[in-house]
Amino acid sequence: MNKGRLEAFSDGVLAIIITIMVLEIKVPHGVTMAALKPLLPVFLSYVLSFIYLGIYWNNHHHMLHSTTKVNGSILWANLHLLFWLSLIPFTTGWMGENAFAPATLALYGVVLLFCSIAYWLLQRMIIQKNGADSLLSHAIGKDLKGKLSPFLYLLGIGLSFWSPWASSVVYVLVAFMWLIPDQRIERTYELKQ
Amino acid sequence: MNKGRLEAFSDGVLAIIITIMVLEIKVPHGVTMAALKPLLPVFLSYVLSFIYLGIYWNNHHHMLHSTTKVNGSILWANLHLLFWLSLIPFTTGWMGENAFAPATLALYGVVLLFCSIAYWLLQRMIIQKNGADSLLSHAIGKDLKGKLSPFLYLLGIGLSFWSPWASSVVYVLVAFMWLIPDQRIERTYELKQ
Amino acid sequence: MNKGRLEAFSDGVLAIIITIMVLEIKVPHGVTMAALKPLLPVFLSYVLSFIYLGIYWNNHHHMLHSTTKVNGSILWANLHLLFWLSLIPFTTGWMGENAFAPATLALYGVVLLFCSIAYWLLQRMIIQKNGADSLLSHAIGKDLKGKLSPFLYLLGIGLSFWSPWASSVVYVLVAFMWLIPDQRIERTYELKQ
Amino acid sequence: MNKGRLEAFSDGVLAIIITIMVLEIKVPHGVTMAALKPLLPVFLSYVLSFIYLGIYWNNHHHMLHSTTKVNGSILWANLHLLFWLSLIPFTTGWMGENAFAPATLALYGVVLLFCSIAYWLLQRMIIQKNGADSLLSHAIGKDLKGKLSPFLYLLGIGLSFWSPWASSVVYVLVAFMWLIPDQRIERTYELKQ
Repeated sequence: MNKGRLEAFSDGVLAIIITIMVLEIKVPHGVTMAALKPLLPVFLSYVLSFIYLGIYWNNHHHMLHSTTKVNGSILWANLHLLFWLSLIPFTTGWMGENAFAPATLALYGVVLLFCSIAYWLLQRMIIQKNGADSLLSHAIGKDLKGKLSPFLYLLGIGLSFWSPWASSVVYVLVAFMWLIPDQRIERTYELKQ
Repeated sequence: MNKGRLEAFSDGVLAIIITIMVLEIKVPHGVTMAALKPLLPVFLSYVLSFIYLGIYWNNHHHMLHSTTKVNGSILWANLHLLFWLSLIPFTTGWMGENAFAPATLALYGVVLLFCSIAYWLLQRMIIQKNGADSLLSHAIGKDLKGKLSPFLYLLGIGLSFWSPWASSVVYVLVAFMWLIPDQRIERTYELKQ
Repeated sequence: MNKGRLEAFSDGVLAIIITIMVLEIKVPHGVTMAALKPLLPVFLSYVLSFIYLGIYWNNHHHMLHSTTKVNGSILWANLHLLFWLSLIPFTTGWMGENAFAPATLALYGVVLLFCSIAYWLLQRMIIQKNGADSLLSHAIGKDLKGKLSPFLYLLGIGLSFWSPWASSVVYVLVAFMWLIPDQRIERTYELKQ
Repeated sequence: MNKGRLEAFSDGVLAIIITIMVLEIKVPHGVTMAALKPLLPVFLSYVLSFIYLGIYWNNHHHMLHSTTKVNGSILWANLHLLFWLSLIPFTTGWMGENAFAPATLALYGVVLLFCSIAYWLLQRMIIQKNGADSLLSHAIGKDLKGKLSPFLYLLGIGLSFWSPWASSVVYVLVAFMWLIPDQRIERTYELKQ
């Protein structure tokens, strides 16, 4: 079974998720720059989610690049990941329109938490199919970031009702932590060739 | 004629169908967790349709994987299938917004019924073109699930006005029945290699 | 220059155009089958446009399949075609929501007219680049359908203010006329191999 | 690392951006040709943005065609470009619905300015990775258009509050200036082969 269509379909879904989020930034009725001001939280939450989806696309790209075998369970684990990612436009919109209100921050974290669990599951299934000695397995190594993220999301969810600011900062920090993840696999891959 | 663009186009349409369904989950006006409660039926119907579309994508992927020859009739049979699948976001939205009301459940089943007929037609045309001794033909075998599904959808439609609950259960069961279909072709394919 | 990305991008745009049309079929507020009745013209216009876009995708697929060389002018002629096709969801929506009112039928025809001209231009540029003795050139032959269509669209536009019914019939007939066009190139292609 | 998925993902995002813009052309309530008149500025701004996105797709296509090596930084520089391009439907919608009001023209220019900077950054990273003697580096040469564009966008932004007409003309002229850019790389590429 080839991974080509799995990549193509995931690219398609991710491209659409990342783009329909922009539909939440509704055209304002005013015609002055001041009319844009209420859109600031909507815009900021769009930026954050765009970065998260970019991270997922990037990591997904790298993970599948170092995958050789695919089976039915991997196809479903991938669809499961796409399901949780597909809820990000909704949580982003709710959070942006309500200027980072506590409940919206909590739900944003919950969906991110499920995304990270779904990604971890997909990763495990790919390693299982491709062997513990596979390129991917070596590249991931101890997977510290992958193991840390769910706990940070839980922290963000917990903080949301206590201090929305602290919660937002946690989500931003997790994104920054992931922004340079590719080099793990990239370096391993170059070494192996 | 190559099947590459057929796969690419189908992936594109399926990726969009699966993603625009999420637009039906409209951002609520409230800012508390309670504001999410009325969205529960919308969310549940999204989950069910996501699974159905995942099944179609998966089966479509497997079917075309074991196809070598494509012709004009197959292109149209594929478009015919995509047409019925494209109506799923509409029936999902109607069903979700009205909390599984009888008529919405009936229509949901009608569209699923036409999807299954369209899939069966496409399958027949591919087998006809690729021969009764082709990989696909062997992999499908007696195609019990394919033959049973339309009757189960008819049962779901019939039950919808009598008991919406029973009707919903039927649709959920059909989805579960299909959730592990890939192995048929997967196994045959591995045996043949 | 390779034609792969031209095909991929066109597939993407066509897949989105064909799918966002379904967003015009707005979920009704009623929960009975009767609530669907006002959607009939919206549904019928969706069916017609789906068929037209299917025809364009099919013909585009065949045309590019028999193309070997691509240049900058061809990329722009293709974008020009996609531009007019991208207006079909709008004209379909206007026509459907107003139950085939004269002006909406006229605009529907105008956009179809420009699509057919844009397709003809793209075809000419591809033949120019690939030679009058190319596969495509042979396959198209006298291109009777291509030459007839613009005049039939003009007829449909002219009839729209006089008799919306007659106008609709013309648009349906043109679609039927094109529904089996692929065999031209398909046959030539098979003969040549 | 291969560039295939980078191209596929970019094609997907660009295809969606270019297509969802059409959703801003809302179906009018009237059923006469006169009902279309208020849509003229919306349509014109759609045409302009379609051309800009077509230019970006075309140039992106050419740039990546002459790229052989891709790394993590290039993936992110590409996502950064897609981010700014994804805001074009919003600025187009605001500008169109308010008939080219000063503030909307200024914002349109600001987003175009960031797009051009993001494109320049991506180009620099690709050249850095592929070498100053690479095909792309030769093809771009002095990159006069690329260097001029940001200043013209700044001019357009500056003019917007003084004379919306002058500002619009600047944006149209920049588009025209770019409409025939492909030949630079195309010619170099043909020479090199």
